[in-house]
Amino acid sequence: MLHIIGLGLADEKDVSVKGLEVIRKAERVYLEAYTAVLLVDQAQLESYYGRPVILADREMVESKSDEILAGADEKDVAFLVVGDPFGATTHTDLALRCRQHEPPIPTRTLPNASILTAVGATGLSLYNFGQTVSMVFFTEDWKPSSFYDRVAENTGLGFHTLMLLDIKVKEPDLKALARGKIIYEPPRFMTVAQCASQMLEVEEERKQGICSKEALAVGVARLGSDDQQIVAGTLEELAGADLGKPLHSLVLCGKKMHELEWEYVRGFAMDQKKFDDVWKQSYKA
Amino acid sequence: MLHIIGLGLADEKDVSVKGLEVIRKAERVYLEAYTAVLLVDQAQLESYYGRPVILADREMVESKSDEILAGADEKDVAFLVVGDPFGATTHTDLALRCRQHEPPIPTRTLPNASILTAVGATGLSLYNFGQTVSMVFFTEDWKPSSFYDRVAENTGLGFHTLMLLDIKVKEPDLKALARGKIIYEPPRFMTVAQCASQMLEVEEERKQGICSKEALAVGVARLGSDDQQIVAGTLEELAGADLGKPLHSLVLCGKKMHELEWEYVRGFAMDQKKFDDVWKQSYKA
Repeated sequence: MLHIIGLGLADEKDVSVKGLEVIRKAERVYLEAYTAVLLVDQAQLESYYGRPVILADREMVESKSDEILAGADEKDVAFLVVGDPFGATTHTDLALRCRQHEPPIPTRTLPNASILTAVGATGLSLYNFGQTVSMVFFTEDWKPSSFYDRVAENTGLGFHTLMLLDIKVKEPDLKALARGKIIYEPPRFMTVAQCASQMLEVEEERKQGICSKEALAVGVARLGSDDQQIVAGTLEELAGADLGKPLHSLVLCGKKMHELEWEYVRGFAMDQKKFDDVWKQSYKA
Repeated sequence: MLHIIGLGLADEKDVSVKGLEVIRKAERVYLEAYTAVLLVDQAQLESYYGRPVILADREMVESKSDEILAGADEKDVAFLVVGDPFGATTHTDLALRCRQHEPPIPTRTLPNASILTAVGATGLSLYNFGQTVSMVFFTEDWKPSSFYDRVAENTGLGFHTLMLLDIKVKEPDLKALARGKIIYEPPRFMTVAQCASQMLEVEEERKQGICSKEALAVGVARLGSDDQQIVAGTLEELAGADLGKPLHSLVLCGKKMHELEWEYVRGFAMDQKKFDDVWKQSYKA
């Protein structure tokens, strides 16, 4: 059986008791290590589990899944995923391959905390969120702005938007690659400030008022850990905020923001008077 | 400190290792028992935790929170929540009361699995969901149809809609109450079939084609447990489906349903040929 096990958000102890029992008995243990990361490293996980952990990068999961699934029709294989197993579509693909395997491989999924719900720590109601939107790193000549249309769909209905921020792990260094060498760039994680800046940059072009300087937003970092940080402010303020180590996410507030949500969120405001003023002027029903 | 601890979805072993450590050391342990329920009872939790568990009903949490918070500025109190702590707004209220307490009570939240993300087990992409919508039990003379407008907002943009179904625990028997006696009705949990029927009933009135008989939907029951069940079909088919014991939820599929989502969901279809036909005719891009 393939056990797809959510690890939660922060460290080795966020796994469920049930998940830990499976990991400790499994024939092999893989860790999906490219759509999200924990705040602890592989060695710490291995020491806590008492088991070797095989890092599964994108290439292994998407092109060499046979390695992962080998023997799983008879023995237990654990595939660990940071957050909840269904946060990324790639894990549904893996389950689909198990179903189509000959003989079929039974799968079992152990859900866990996800940023999609942990973001409720901001005080924003999970009932008021629209679709989740991804933000990728802009480069000099590639600034995809399709996120703006998705955010606009949400804001049109007054919904909040959770923005999931790009991470780059194990990206080949293109200059080295051109010289025939495979060297990986150091990992990069988008910050709240970078996301806010990119949103403002696209607003400059589109000018529909979806991601304006005065739009209220909430930045979060390391949610679910003792070290979590939540900062609320305008997008302009957040573009200058430093929330420290990864992972970061950002929520753009929708106009439906209820008074009870505001009352909680304002406790995280960088400049509470400004936050209240903007809320009263542009958000309050 | 008040520790608000998510228990996950199924049984006593879905708590995180970290959460279990807190529960076993806390001065008092409360279980919020009115917005959702686990598949195991209080006695099983107490036996596993090795601690007495105090059931907190709506009245205690909303009107007598002082009892829960007593001494929490100095000692550790655990407040257990089925699923994720932020699934229901009432828990944010509790955190807000801690913040406003004199002296302030520090809070810490341990996230866990929620139906909002566990629903990814259907194969539907979590990125394609709009707002979450609640469905309450209709009575003879009270059939609130505001859910229909919310669902329409989602379907207008092609989003899926997760419907969270009403549960009634500890409801006073009104006839007994009129005779001056407080007797509680047996707990009731809305089924997928009841939800689908109510949706069709409101469609009959509104006729906007939002919840039509041929709309595709997915019913889920006991997600996250070994006994979980997933059934896909038209709303008309689901109105006749029996998914067994609670808790149930329903997803109304949005028109944006991608081919990859369809490929996975059809594995759960009550009538695969019909499911495929409807998808090809009305959903496929």
